[in-house]
Amino acid sequence: MPQYRRRRWREANALRLDLNGLLAGAVGGDGIAPEELGAFEPELLRVRDAIAARRAAGELSFTALPHEREPVRRVLEVAAAVQGQFDALVVLGIGGSALGIRALAGALATEGSALRIVVADSIDPETFGPLLAGLDLRRTLFNVVSKSGETAETMAQFMIVRDRLMHQLGAVDYKRHLVVTTDARHGSLRQIVNDEGFQQLVIPEGIDGRYSVLTAVGLFPAAAAGIDIEELLAGAASMDERGRAAPTPLRDPALALAGALWLLATRRQKRMLVLMAYCERLAATGDWFCQLWAESLGKSVELGDRTAVWGQTPIRLGPADQHSQLQLFVDGPPDKVVVFLRVDDHGAAVDVPATYQDLEGVGYLGGHSLGALLNAEQRATELALAKRGRPSATLTLPGVTAFTLGQLLFLLQMAAVDLAAIAGIDPFGQPGVEESRRLAFGLLGRPGFEASHDEVEGWLAQKDTRFIL
Amino acid sequence: MPQYRRRRWREANALRLDLNGLLAGAVGGDGIAPEELGAFEPELLRVRDAIAARRAAGELSFTALPHEREPVRRVLEVAAAVQGQFDALVVLGIGGSALGIRALAGALATEGSALRIVVADSIDPETFGPLLAGLDLRRTLFNVVSKSGETAETMAQFMIVRDRLMHQLGAVDYKRHLVVTTDARHGSLRQIVNDEGFQQLVIPEGIDGRYSVLTAVGLFPAAAAGIDIEELLAGAASMDERGRAAPTPLRDPALALAGALWLLATRRQKRMLVLMAYCERLAATGDWFCQLWAESLGKSVELGDRTAVWGQTPIRLGPADQHSQLQLFVDGPPDKVVVFLRVDDHGAAVDVPATYQDLEGVGYLGGHSLGALLNAEQRATELALAKRGRPSATLTLPGVTAFTLGQLLFLLQMAAVDLAAIAGIDPFGQPGVEESRRLAFGLLGRPGFEASHDEVEGWLAQKDTRFIL
Repeated sequence: MPQYRRRRWREANALRLDLNGLLAGAVGGDGIAPEELGAFEPELLRVRDAIAARRAAGELSFTALPHEREPVRRVLEVAAAVQGQFDALVVLGIGGSALGIRALAGALATEGSALRIVVADSIDPETFGPLLAGLDLRRTLFNVVSKSGETAETMAQFMIVRDRLMHQLGAVDYKRHLVVTTDARHGSLRQIVNDEGFQQLVIPEGIDGRYSVLTAVGLFPAAAAGIDIEELLAGAASMDERGRAAPTPLRDPALALAGALWLLATRRQKRMLVLMAYCERLAATGDWFCQLWAESLGKSVELGDRTAVWGQTPIRLGPADQHSQLQLFVDGPPDKVVVFLRVDDHGAAVDVPATYQDLEGVGYLGGHSLGALLNAEQRATELALAKRGRPSATLTLPGVTAFTLGQLLFLLQMAAVDLAAIAGIDPFGQPGVEESRRLAFGLLGRPGFEASHDEVEGWLAQKDTRFIL
Repeated sequence: MPQYRRRRWREANALRLDLNGLLAGAVGGDGIAPEELGAFEPELLRVRDAIAARRAAGELSFTALPHEREPVRRVLEVAAAVQGQFDALVVLGIGGSALGIRALAGALATEGSALRIVVADSIDPETFGPLLAGLDLRRTLFNVVSKSGETAETMAQFMIVRDRLMHQLGAVDYKRHLVVTTDARHGSLRQIVNDEGFQQLVIPEGIDGRYSVLTAVGLFPAAAAGIDIEELLAGAASMDERGRAAPTPLRDPALALAGALWLLATRRQKRMLVLMAYCERLAATGDWFCQLWAESLGKSVELGDRTAVWGQTPIRLGPADQHSQLQLFVDGPPDKVVVFLRVDDHGAAVDVPATYQDLEGVGYLGGHSLGALLNAEQRATELALAKRGRPSATLTLPGVTAFTLGQLLFLLQMAAVDLAAIAGIDPFGQPGVEESRRLAFGLLGRPGFEASHDEVEGWLAQKDTRFIL
């Protein structure tokens, strides 16, 4: 495509962010007043400069991902190498090693694609057992994904799968069915790869799981399933450029969203952010977002003699939930801000036939497409919330494509990092989960965690039994 | 089974509720002090008496469902009539007409069952279109479920399905493929049933969708799929009897849970209830619970010159979410109470092989079953939360069976009603969603809703466009 046509195409396929529903003009006192937003611009400028400086210092590695070529070349090379040999690709991973590829596959994998993607992030034996039993192992590729190489769930799955592959395919051929994505140097899984010689991909330094969707973690299974990862990265890059080229902070989508959410969270007590996707293909993106938001922003910081606690609880809903949660959102405590995901073009056209024209209660449905019905419900919900003073923003995708999804994922990641910078917390790391990992290791008898084992046992032994019913 | 053996079996299969993790002894200041609970008992007694009086007056219809025979006979009759003729049963319903059967099917439907259940609660054309395209209509039964008979999503689905069935099977035979579950007298769907003569089942008066799982709404598709609905009802009845036979309010599981949650919500600012199921089969029960909690308890009440607002936001998570949300729960604002769902016996046994014994980081996993791994993680999470002063309760099912699920569903419904009684709000009805329905009707051109149409159009026209990025 010539340069100028490509530019026009990009403009037509740009994601739109409508923040008006967050303002006092739309929702009254629970919205942000224009002067509040204006007064906050210097702070947003400070954040913008700070983030630019951190990027220049090479600190925000995930922001470089859309612009790097070498990792993509490597991913495409491995994807090409496995092409045509398998029917299913099972990703063994959990949390940040599962939610990114779930988002990509949910939005972009098509029925007719070469490889069916299954993300196995559950160790429930009644889920994982039947999954394995239903696979033709000779036609299945497993992608084991763990940054640390020691995630209990993923490593347990890997040990079970490797055992079954060796039994069924023999001690040489099983290797062809495993691709490992892990840290370049550290962890048990890296050691196993080096010993056994599987195909392997690297998770770069300094990238937490929730920022890894554009590394090999997300890109390899996506590429293997025929998703256009170049367009995905182009979308992410275009959102990045759009933010950086914005003339003012409030024209930078991520920063404007982060600033508005900060004001709503801290001055209007919006403790929860509800991401409501009126598009099933974006449901898994909602789950991915929940991890991004919860782990990046749910933090305590020791400030000398006091502890500052931050965190806005993310909730992911779909269109069916207006028949299950809306009552609470409209009539319950005003402690939420809603972000709608809306799609202009739903792709498939399914129309309601013009029957029952004489029945007042249903006849009007005839002639509408299901996509129009869905979008009408989004509008109605948005306005119903606004009329009750409940703020919402709307993110509109022209259609669900690799290019628009890339924009969306990058925007939300930047918004999390911008919001963390405003709050003065570190969006990376998850120090709070170490305790539970340590205790689980203890319970499972991992060497070196005997004290944790005793701690759990002691706690269970001294538990009050009066209130067990 | 003789009476005494049945009693022993019931005891062995009784659901256990452990409330200790909500107490100050377990979590410190953010837990409930024993004296607070004691002081609250008179209030719980009042609620108990009030609920008994309402039941005696025939007001809480859903509580009678486990004890009624006639509706079950009718459900089994229709289920028997469709037996052997179909491969798939597609439920067309949304909200309360979908979440109950999702819970039942998710927990209890087995791979080998006669009928595969699909719950179609999405009108997204990219979900519903492919679903229809993938069905062999000659071997598919559709169960259309709508209390009002005018739910836009469900009626649109029905009109599309009916059209396709008539085209493919002819204007007589299509009727055999539809079973309608709706109000006995009112609504467009009732009129359609009367005109066209489909098989039909009745949703009794006074039962909201979220309390309808034990009516034909849940029971018919469950029975058709081979789920033992008698055992399900027996489980619900046993929980009902257990509550009523409790010597004190704090020995009544639903009332004790409701009382503890009320104290935590109003005195410890636990604005969210996280239901965390360490069992994939209970995931859909979590979604069902979210509707129950949100719609029953998210209410505003006009009290003369002021408005009382109540509502605890429900959040449903699974075991994988300890790798996505736990950071926030442990380190973020202390605004949540967690209720764990735990299962003693996970059924299928999948064991991790004893490989890599020399690798310290993974070798310890060998020999554990996945079920044991899952339960160890639940314990570790529970203790990690407690150590940070975050309260949790644990509901343990001996196994996931129709009998235990019946107990669980009844317990949670009673807890919602008990909590509403404590809060002084009506657990039934959903007045807050009327506005959004009205606006959607307007947008879709339903006759009589022209003013709503103009309202949305006017609102869109005057929208501030300055903050569209």
